Amino acid sequence: MSERAARVVELLARLPGVGEKTAQRYLLHLLTSEEKLSRDLGAELAVLRDHVKSCVKCGNIAEVEAPSETPICPVCSDNKRDAALLCVVARVHDLLAIERAGSMRGRYFVLGKLLSPLEGVGPDDLPLRKLVERVKDGIKEVILATPPSVDGEATALLIKRELEPLGLSLSRIASGVPHGGDLEFADPITMGRALSGRQRM
Amino acid sequence: MSERAARVVELLARLPGVGEKTAQRYLLHLLTSEEKLSRDLGAELAVLRDHVKSCVKCGNIAEVEAPSETPICPVCSDNKRDAALLCVVARVHDLLAIERAGSMRGRYFVLGKLLSPLEGVGPDDLPLRKLVERVKDGIKEVILATPPSVDGEATALLIKRELEPLGLSLSRIASGVPHGGDLEFADPITMGRALSGRQRM
Repeated sequence: MSERAARVVELLARLPGVGEKTAQRYLLHLLTSEEKLSRDLGAELAVLRDHVKSCVKCGNIAEVEAPSETPICPVCSDNKRDAALLCVVARVHDLLAIERAGSMRGRYFVLGKLLSPLEGVGPDDLPLRKLVERVKDGIKEVILATPPSVDGEATALLIKRELEPLGLSLSRIASGVPHGGDLEFADPITMGRALSGRQRM
Repeated sequence: MSERAARVVELLARLPGVGEKTAQRYLLHLLTSEEKLSRDLGAELAVLRDHVKSCVKCGNIAEVEAPSETPICPVCSDNKRDAALLCVVARVHDLLAIERAGSMRGRYFVLGKLLSPLEGVGPDDLPLRKLVERVKDGIKEVILATPPSVDGEATALLIKRELEPLGLSLSRIASGVPHGGDLEFADPITMGRALSGRQRM
């Protein structure tokens, strides 16, 4: 393969879950489909990081026109949102998933990572001080929406300890058998949570 | 999601096998990994089609420095290759796969598509005249390496009929149980081919 083509394959292979074969498939598609696709994608990606940044308040994706502008995301600038409700998530992906569900009427705080002894992520690596400051700015209720995994639960417990002294309402998202899920195929931990988290009806 | 981010997701989702969720994962990776990745990838893609073109002789990927240059691929310009041996493939992907195997010492001809009555691709849509001209230019042996699928076999038969009058050596790649494959899991057609294509030992 030519040098330039190999360079594009090498760069594409740095995307998550993309190996050399997939990257090569992408390259050949870009070379054989309409020319506009590679040009447009190239132009957008070249300036992506100039215009799409992290919201200074919550860590969500925020767009700016000029580099000097302070990035504030649409959720944080939306005045119709409940300013006293904060949902703490691990990653922007999770924030977007919750937004898609459409039932969260407050704002968010993106941690960026989870406690993970195996990967060497300790309490000092989490933005706990920034979270406490954010919460002190008028928040009355915090929903901990870190994933129901070992790392996610540990992080939720750590944040609970950190925020408890502030005397606000703290809750954790429910974990159980998913909608449309089959009880037969639920793993034992999920089934245990579905039972222990049962609600009176 | 912001307008610019949504536009990047839309463009990424045009890559083969990439849906909106995967495109979003790519975007978030490009936004959170080192800034250089999106800039470099953007810069490369923006000019990709100016520099990486189709080889005029075989259809393989060929790099040019100036747009006025005639694209000739490394295989066609390699004088150590057997100039009398031609391997006919459906796509550039197939050419690259054969090159990886390293045992083809001739040159190639990329058809670009296969006969496909279902998709409305007939004999007139294949570059048969160009292939005949290429073959008349000193080729003594042609290997038909279209895939062992219905469309691939039909295309191979069509090309055989087209090239037979030229009186050269024509062959078809072998089809059978793949190396490391388990007989137990071979489909009936593959097994039938493995048997009918058996070789004396």
